[in-house]
Order: sequence, then C-alpha cells, then structure tokens
Amino acid sequence: MADPLTTVSVLREAMRRFVAERDWEQFHSPKNLVMGLSVEAAELMEHFLWVSNEESHALVRDPARLDEVADEMADVALYLLALCNTLGIDLSDAITNKLVKTALKYPVERCRGRYKPEA
Amino acid sequence: MADPLTTVSVLREAMRRFVAERDWEQFHSPKNLVMGLSVEAAELMEHFLWVSNEESHALVRDPARLDEVADEMADVALYLLALCNTLGIDLSDAITNKLVKTALKYPVERCRGRYKPEA
Amino acid sequence: MADPLTTVSVLREAMRRFVAERDWEQFHSPKNLVMGLSVEAAELMEHFLWVSNEESHALVRDPARLDEVADEMADVALYLLALCNTLGIDLSDAITNKLVKTALKYPVERCRGRYKPEA
Amino acid sequence: MADPLTTVSVLREAMRRFVAERDWEQFHSPKNLVMGLSVEAAELMEHFLWVSNEESHALVRDPARLDEVADEMADVALYLLALCNTLGIDLSDAITNKLVKTALKYPVERCRGRYKPEA
Repeated sequence: MADPLTTVSVLREAMRRFVAERDWEQFHSPKNLVMGLSVEAAELMEHFLWVSNEESHALVRDPARLDEVADEMADVALYLLALCNTLGIDLSDAITNKLVKTALKYPVERCRGRYKPEA
Repeated sequence: MADPLTTVSVLREAMRRFVAERDWEQFHSPKNLVMGLSVEAAELMEHFLWVSNEESHALVRDPARLDEVADEMADVALYLLALCNTLGIDLSDAITNKLVKTALKYPVERCRGRYKPEA
Repeated sequence: MADPLTTVSVLREAMRRFVAERDWEQFHSPKNLVMGLSVEAAELMEHFLWVSNEESHALVRDPARLDEVADEMADVALYLLALCNTLGIDLSDAITNKLVKTALKYPVERCRGRYKPEA
Repeated sequence: MADPLTTVSVLREAMRRFVAERDWEQFHSPKNLVMGLSVEAAELMEHFLWVSNEESHALVRDPARLDEVADEMADVALYLLALCNTLGIDLSDAITNKLVKTALKYPVERCRGRYKPEA
C-alpha cells in the first residue's frame, strides 16, 4: 500500500528521471504523448471487450488478470505524468479544479442514482 | 503547486466521495470506466489533431488552451482513480512496478536517444 | 438503401474530391488521419458509455439517437477512406485478406458460440 | 484492385456470414462493437506513434509496414461493417449525408488550405 504515502510529485519525478536517462524528451511532444496515452487506454479497454458489465467485475477477481490490468493502468498513468512534466501542469490542482466544475454540473440532489441530471 | 504535497490516496478519496455522494458506484463497472477513460483520452488528443509535433509544443503556450488541456487531463486522471477505487489497485505500486519492468525492456545503454532498443 | 449499389471506389472518390476542393491533402498525413479516426471512434463509443450491452441494443431503437450514431459511424468511415486515398490501399482487398486470416485464427468448429478458440 | 468493383453490401455480407458461422451475433451488442472498433483504431494509431507527420508518410513506403497498416485498417472496417449489420444502418447513405453536412460546415471558399473556417 504505497498510495497513502506517495505524492504526485514523487511519481512525476520517477518518470522524469526515466525519460531523461534515455534522452527521450525529444520524443515527448504533447502530440506524441496524448497519442501514446490513448493507445494505452485502448490496451486497458481490450481486457474488458467481450464481457458484460457484471462479468467485468468478475474478471478482475482473477489475480493474474488483475495484475495485467494494473500494468495497463500504470502505462496510462505514466503517459499522463510525462504529459504533466512536458506541459508543466500541476495534476493535483487540475483534478481538484475539475472536480469542483463537475460537481456544479452534476448537483447531488439532481443526480443521485442517475448518470444524467434529472430534467 | 499541489503535487508536492498531495498523495495519491487524497486524490482517490476525493473521487470516491464524489461518486458515493451521487450513488454512482452502480455505474462504475470496470468495463464502463475503461470506456470512459478512453473517451476522455480521445478528447485530450483532439486538441493536438491537426498540428505537427513542434506546433503541439507551441499550442500549449496559449494559457486558455493549456487550461482546456489540463481539464481533459484531469478527466483522464479521475477515471483512472475511479478504476483504482473499484478494483482496489494501489496505483503507486502499479506505477513503480511498471517502471522497473520497462527499464529492463529499454536498457539505458541501448535506448539512449532511440525510442526502440538498438539492435 | 445505397449499399447494394455503391462501390468502395465511389465513396473514396467522394472523399477525395471533398479533401481536394479544400486543399486539405497537406493535413492528411497518415499520423493525423489515424489520430482523427481514433477520435471519431471515441465519439461513437461515447453514445454507449453508461449502458449495459442489452441497453445498448435498446438505445438505438430511438430514431433520433440512431441518426446520431450513423453520423459518427460516417465520420469513422470518412477518415478510413481518406487514409486509403493517402496510402493507396485497396480497402476491399485488405478486408478480404483479413477475413481469410481471421478465419484461420478462429476456426468455425472451435469457436462456435465462443469468442476465444476452445482449448 | 477490388474497390472499383466491390459494393459495400458485398463487404457487409462477407462479415455477416463470418459472424453467423461462428454464432457470434450474441457478442455483437452495439456497446461491444464500438469498443472493439476503438481498440482497433488504437492499434492502427500505434504504428505512427513516435514519428513526425513527415516521417509517417515515409514509414508506409516500406511494403511490409504498409501491409501491417492495411491489416489494421481492415480490422477497423470489419467492426464498422458489423455495426452496420447489427444496427441496420446503410453506410453509403450515412457517408453521403455526413459529407453534405460537413460541406456546409466547412465551405470551400472559407476553408481552402485551412483546417478551421476562416473567421
């Protein structure tokens, strides 16, 4: 359990170092990074392609499958962290700001149990 | 600058609460969440569709555009955090493990300045 | 009902002309076109994000929704046709070849009613 | 060169038969098919991930690479045809309608050589 102790900056720095050691900043244009992120998101999605929503819960009870899924999630995260590094974006601030906006768009009282606001 | 002080757990908890307040756990099957993540990744990608790699660097020098991009990045992150919550995956561990594996696959001495290992 | 009478070449030519009239060939690098195709695929996917497989069948019984979905499918097709034009690929041949390969990978007797070959 | 002689219906029918022989209609919910299409679009995109727009033109001069790309394009097309079959959508009509709408949105005189309409 590392999430309670790990800051976003620690993860960003791990990725920054990985990229710098390989002299890969030259490939990390925003355009390339968002493409890579999208490719990894699709690889994650592929695990859940032919199943129902219920079966998708069951699928990940298999520890080997869950490990594969965690690996794909990490790939998505790594591209996102690389993009933060390239663009100089503070991810925690971005997340907090977006949650505030989304909360205004989907008020609790009109959205409870519905994924679209009640008319 | 919140990244140096914000743990992954704090972000996960913010998303968990947002979802719970709306009783949205019922929609958060792994299948739905990976689809949502992929949709958000594409919205992020759309900002960089018609530009060159060089122009993609320039694009984000416009603060208004950078804000929009940060918003899309936050959406990707929020789906990823929701997926961590649903699956009980420790994201920091997953990232660390994946970086170790990727470092073995792309050794520094054979990959410096090349995005594929030298033959 | 135009599909029984419309050749792939007719559709390719319609897209070629659309692009040429706007002098857009300069933007139609393979890299840009595959990104655009992926963005459109995600927009198509978004229509089916929060529903179950069963509900996804029901959703498209609404004619207005079906029209929107057909529009997104056309967008995907148009990028694919543009890519055929840029790369000089014969789509019908590519499809026929791929069906033959896929039939060998998923033999009828081992795959009937299963989306993975029986062990 | 099969495109000048092959109607969309012929391609749809080839896919319909492939699916029916395997009794796979049960997996072909709209939700599953749009996910599959998006996964294939990402696999196509992966070929062009780390290159510039110019390099993406050069990449496909390698016949082996072009064959791989054609294969991925066929996968995208096959999912699109399966979706047409499941939804009963006439793809040629959808494409023609969308081209008309897009032509109105991007008038020739305001878009020549620009991917956004001139202000």
